[in-house]
Amino acid sequence: MILVLKRGVAGPERTSLQELAVRAGRVCRFVPASDDAVVAILDGGRDRPDPDLAARARLWPGVMAVVEPGEELPLTRAAVGAFAVAPRHGRPVTFGPRDFVWIAGPCSVEDPTMLGEVATAVAAAGATMLRGGAYKPRTSPYSFAGHGREGLLLLERVAQDVGLPVVSEVLDVRDVDFVAQHVDMLQVGARNMQNFPLLSEVGACGRPVLLKRGPASTLDELLAAAEYVLHAGCTSLALCERGVRGFDPNRRNVLDLSIVPALRERTNLPVIVDPSHATGCRSLVLPMAKAAVAAGADGVMVEVHSRPTEALSDPTQALLPADLDELGTALRALVRLEQRALASVQEAVTPDASVRREPAAHDRERTT
Amino acid sequence: MILVLKRGVAGPERTSLQELAVRAGRVCRFVPASDDAVVAILDGGRDRPDPDLAARARLWPGVMAVVEPGEELPLTRAAVGAFAVAPRHGRPVTFGPRDFVWIAGPCSVEDPTMLGEVATAVAAAGATMLRGGAYKPRTSPYSFAGHGREGLLLLERVAQDVGLPVVSEVLDVRDVDFVAQHVDMLQVGARNMQNFPLLSEVGACGRPVLLKRGPASTLDELLAAAEYVLHAGCTSLALCERGVRGFDPNRRNVLDLSIVPALRERTNLPVIVDPSHATGCRSLVLPMAKAAVAAGADGVMVEVHSRPTEALSDPTQALLPADLDELGTALRALVRLEQRALASVQEAVTPDASVRREPAAHDRERTT
Amino acid sequence: MILVLKRGVAGPERTSLQELAVRAGRVCRFVPASDDAVVAILDGGRDRPDPDLAARARLWPGVMAVVEPGEELPLTRAAVGAFAVAPRHGRPVTFGPRDFVWIAGPCSVEDPTMLGEVATAVAAAGATMLRGGAYKPRTSPYSFAGHGREGLLLLERVAQDVGLPVVSEVLDVRDVDFVAQHVDMLQVGARNMQNFPLLSEVGACGRPVLLKRGPASTLDELLAAAEYVLHAGCTSLALCERGVRGFDPNRRNVLDLSIVPALRERTNLPVIVDPSHATGCRSLVLPMAKAAVAAGADGVMVEVHSRPTEALSDPTQALLPADLDELGTALRALVRLEQRALASVQEAVTPDASVRREPAAHDRERTT
Amino acid sequence: MILVLKRGVAGPERTSLQELAVRAGRVCRFVPASDDAVVAILDGGRDRPDPDLAARARLWPGVMAVVEPGEELPLTRAAVGAFAVAPRHGRPVTFGPRDFVWIAGPCSVEDPTMLGEVATAVAAAGATMLRGGAYKPRTSPYSFAGHGREGLLLLERVAQDVGLPVVSEVLDVRDVDFVAQHVDMLQVGARNMQNFPLLSEVGACGRPVLLKRGPASTLDELLAAAEYVLHAGCTSLALCERGVRGFDPNRRNVLDLSIVPALRERTNLPVIVDPSHATGCRSLVLPMAKAAVAAGADGVMVEVHSRPTEALSDPTQALLPADLDELGTALRALVRLEQRALASVQEAVTPDASVRREPAAHDRERTT
Repeated sequence: MILVLKRGVAGPERTSLQELAVRAGRVCRFVPASDDAVVAILDGGRDRPDPDLAARARLWPGVMAVVEPGEELPLTRAAVGAFAVAPRHGRPVTFGPRDFVWIAGPCSVEDPTMLGEVATAVAAAGATMLRGGAYKPRTSPYSFAGHGREGLLLLERVAQDVGLPVVSEVLDVRDVDFVAQHVDMLQVGARNMQNFPLLSEVGACGRPVLLKRGPASTLDELLAAAEYVLHAGCTSLALCERGVRGFDPNRRNVLDLSIVPALRERTNLPVIVDPSHATGCRSLVLPMAKAAVAAGADGVMVEVHSRPTEALSDPTQALLPADLDELGTALRALVRLEQRALASVQEAVTPDASVRREPAAHDRERTT
Repeated sequence: MILVLKRGVAGPERTSLQELAVRAGRVCRFVPASDDAVVAILDGGRDRPDPDLAARARLWPGVMAVVEPGEELPLTRAAVGAFAVAPRHGRPVTFGPRDFVWIAGPCSVEDPTMLGEVATAVAAAGATMLRGGAYKPRTSPYSFAGHGREGLLLLERVAQDVGLPVVSEVLDVRDVDFVAQHVDMLQVGARNMQNFPLLSEVGACGRPVLLKRGPASTLDELLAAAEYVLHAGCTSLALCERGVRGFDPNRRNVLDLSIVPALRERTNLPVIVDPSHATGCRSLVLPMAKAAVAAGADGVMVEVHSRPTEALSDPTQALLPADLDELGTALRALVRLEQRALASVQEAVTPDASVRREPAAHDRERTT
Repeated sequence: MILVLKRGVAGPERTSLQELAVRAGRVCRFVPASDDAVVAILDGGRDRPDPDLAARARLWPGVMAVVEPGEELPLTRAAVGAFAVAPRHGRPVTFGPRDFVWIAGPCSVEDPTMLGEVATAVAAAGATMLRGGAYKPRTSPYSFAGHGREGLLLLERVAQDVGLPVVSEVLDVRDVDFVAQHVDMLQVGARNMQNFPLLSEVGACGRPVLLKRGPASTLDELLAAAEYVLHAGCTSLALCERGVRGFDPNRRNVLDLSIVPALRERTNLPVIVDPSHATGCRSLVLPMAKAAVAAGADGVMVEVHSRPTEALSDPTQALLPADLDELGTALRALVRLEQRALASVQEAVTPDASVRREPAAHDRERTT
Repeated sequence: MILVLKRGVAGPERTSLQELAVRAGRVCRFVPASDDAVVAILDGGRDRPDPDLAARARLWPGVMAVVEPGEELPLTRAAVGAFAVAPRHGRPVTFGPRDFVWIAGPCSVEDPTMLGEVATAVAAAGATMLRGGAYKPRTSPYSFAGHGREGLLLLERVAQDVGLPVVSEVLDVRDVDFVAQHVDMLQVGARNMQNFPLLSEVGACGRPVLLKRGPASTLDELLAAAEYVLHAGCTSLALCERGVRGFDPNRRNVLDLSIVPALRERTNLPVIVDPSHATGCRSLVLPMAKAAVAAGADGVMVEVHSRPTEALSDPTQALLPADLDELGTALRALVRLEQRALASVQEAVTPDASVRREPAAHDRERTT
């Protein structure tokens, strides 16, 4: 850890800084610099981050800056960027740099008819995975909160009918086991990105996880949330950008697409983009889904409803089944340009060298 | 529900809008207006909000605006604004318009010595309630996450020693029962403001609740979260502003003090202000605590640590025990100006007419 | 104008509302609605917006909502979406739905060598327009603020050498005439988006204008700023998204790409995207430029420097000349998918039917 | 300047970094540190900031952090924190730590009757300075933009009638001379905080200046804007917080009160708070004006209108004349607690030792 101090820092303050270093198992030495400054180097950290020591050091009188080298989130940094989501019946889907994942489905699981219509259209259009909410986080306690277990079982059955793997959100640590038994991938929603008990529980459940970014979360916070999931044992994790809170009262969220390449420099975890929640507006979903491909995303997730004006949640952003063909055509053309496939793979793949992404930029630098 | 439509809305679209109204148990009639507009009135809602119908109506072609009268959050609107937090041993504290609540204590429960030092100083300075975190939500899984149950038991014991009621955060629905047995008031942290299962569990536990506003939550979202807690049965709820996420990279959060009077127009629930998390900076805590009183807050909550440079979390914002006297003096002078008391009451009070706040502005209007 | 009132609004208040209407040249009538509401219709506005009347109406006791139909920004709504920027020597560039504009060049005009190197590389890579700042808005008065008139003359000469039209920023109303004499398109920078005297002056100068969105401006504010420019007489205006202020301290701005299709529903004005300022980071420019094409932008503007580590401003975001070929190849492939051309047209075009965009969605609705 | 590099930085990169230092007139030396790091110290900067060198250094491969000691904004740091605003006829007002300034008046100068009513009420209530806009920045070109020169002359006359000094906004560099002849203090509005030509012109006009913070400006940007004004020669500058853009669609701005004590640690310039624009809501003005005093502000500025429902701009936030007595009483009580005076001083004061604020914290540290 390296501290930059003002030059005037006197003897007693230096001594107390040295004592702080010793208590943290380090040795402190001082290097004079020009520009009215002194550098204090706290050796002995063995490349381990120590955010609490950094916070304490910032309290020291005359400290202008604290720089802490070292890996802060080792599992996120080292994560393999490809994995398969394999349904019990049907075709597995590979997340990662080779394939492009297209997840589609209704916001909420409502009734069997609607779900069947949507799922059939989703499969027909060539999407590779089905989504649908059985547990819905709703701002007001009086809004429709999903059909719960019953909805999940319906979703499972319909997904099997159309032969697609399925992802669904879990809200409550006490539901994780049940959800993990009935869906192929568990989603942690944006509002729960820092629900740490849920992150740990989901990470330990043995299923792939889709972690949505919180609406006001930084890139570092998203990566730290991912670290919780990986730390609990998960080996198949994808991140999802779904728009951040902005200042324009007439628009829903701001789709922060540049986080896709920015994440790529920090981790190999696949990054999915959700243009439906990000824009809240059906007419914006197609252009932003296309933009996501061009920005380098590993997949998109869109909401579809066969009768939006009857939808029980989020109707304004739902695509119609009739929109899916246009979206599929556009995605396939762009995915091809990116030298990826929007394809249903025929057998389960395991992460192997061929689908591994190149080491992240940071690692490349370090190995040279 | 009232819709403003563009004038060009044609017969078939009007018919389908009428069908939508019928399906929702309402009757739709059209009123021509100038300015290229038509008003559609959906009668029959009996003053109940129907956010899902509103969302569907917004989808209709040519709809320019949807206005939905009626109470959206009846329990938050009707809540009584005063309640007592009564410790098993010691003096109860009254939240509400008459008394001013001063909560102080360490960010985390660390060791018995530190906690004892801080609690003693807090009581001596005249604070009316102790705080301390046993379960700590931390961005990184490698940060100190609190001492858990053991920390809670220590907190309980020290609080009894100094004779103050105690508030502590709970993160996990599975811990609610345990926490409720050992503290006098449960805190829902900012990151969990929309953790709906936790809101319901905490609201049903029988203890007073302190609900912190999420760092990017709107006033309406905060009130809707409060409605969850009240809906679960809670009758003693206070809200807490603790700063919102801003755009200035060199400052921690933006303390949104004007939410205090803005909340007052919507609910009688007491509003506490936390200037420690809001500013992240010890030197800003005193002026912002004072500003909170002047803005009409019902209390403040500040962090204190006897040796901040050894603190295991959030050291930069902790006051020193020596700061408490100055803060207490300043608070008392301001509280007096507001014709309130910063006082330890001598016996348990129950919410009665004398401490009830005047009905909120909105209600006053409606009764005239 | 349509007001939704609470039902309890009494006689005297109704009378005073009618008087307000009369003073504004309107007639007020009341329509009872269910849900505890009354609708007040202020006829007679002849489809003209009256934001000041709306603001006054909002003050009336019991007003729940004010909806004002009508065109608020008629020139922005009616603007033709295509125009040519024609240099005195060289090939004109067409902004609009048919062609895709690629603007590139250094942040600042520095010395002739650097500028010549960059301009040559820009032209060779197939970019269609040159950029360069002679007047630089800088946060600190001690930063390099551009070479002013001298820099502008150098820019003009180099642009002629490489045969590209050139765009450059103007900061001061007193410089508008001079800048208009020497560049082909004037840029209003993000910090000046609401510098209304400058908008009017630039709009009246007879040259095409590139208006950058302010870093915290809403879509409506951007359109209103455009209305100022058009109102002053400009007939060749393009808008530019360059990132908005976000909350993540480790990232520069948030590129709000979804404003591209959102603007499309409100105006035909061409929309350019600047991924350099938006991301502040060289490695993110290429993916976000690609995403801009896929989102439907009419052009991109990127910064290039031949020796970024010697750059006098914004070095971290500058592409190297060597990056331009990769960017050009990527842009051309994507532009082709969008059925546009990234082409230097051979003669000056005037806006004609063939390059006009379809009327915006809102207009289409109104004509049906 | 101090750089923290990754340890792996090799010989050629070190050489090129040394060359960069030499070109900037500095000498570079390397100090090994543990934790996979190296410190590079660029001596020779003589405590002068060099933001462009810092930006270039950040581009170097393997640079993890750049810390630049030294004064970035010397005039803002050294500014004297007290000055008088002296009208030609009437009582001067002192800005600074001793007195508390209360500015009040209408948003816009409308007609003589209204302005006279308001000014009389303002003076009678004990406010110490009059405000009123003759040049109004308005988002739309169709909104009332003020009466210009005529309005200014009216304002000047009415201010003399009531014997108060007057502050008014200037938007256009070409109006600065005229405005400076007719008002006692020039205001730079929030939208123009980074209109650098205007800052320079206003700073050179010889009158005191009130600089409002931009709605999305950081503390550092506000100080840098202040530096522009001081750099142009201004010796009487006050800053004004007026709310920042937030994410809540139902509220106007977020009053960022904690910037008041945060600014105090960086500069002695007086800080005024404008609760009217910050909240946009009459009922919130009083509590937030009170909070401003308690937070340590040096003054408040509030909008008043005698007939808000006829106001030509911003009616929702205007206080009524009848509100001024309550506000004055509340301010006086709080100002007294802060050991200041809300008083009209009897003669012109010049900044002298008795009204100087203690050196800012940073300076104190440096002198010890």
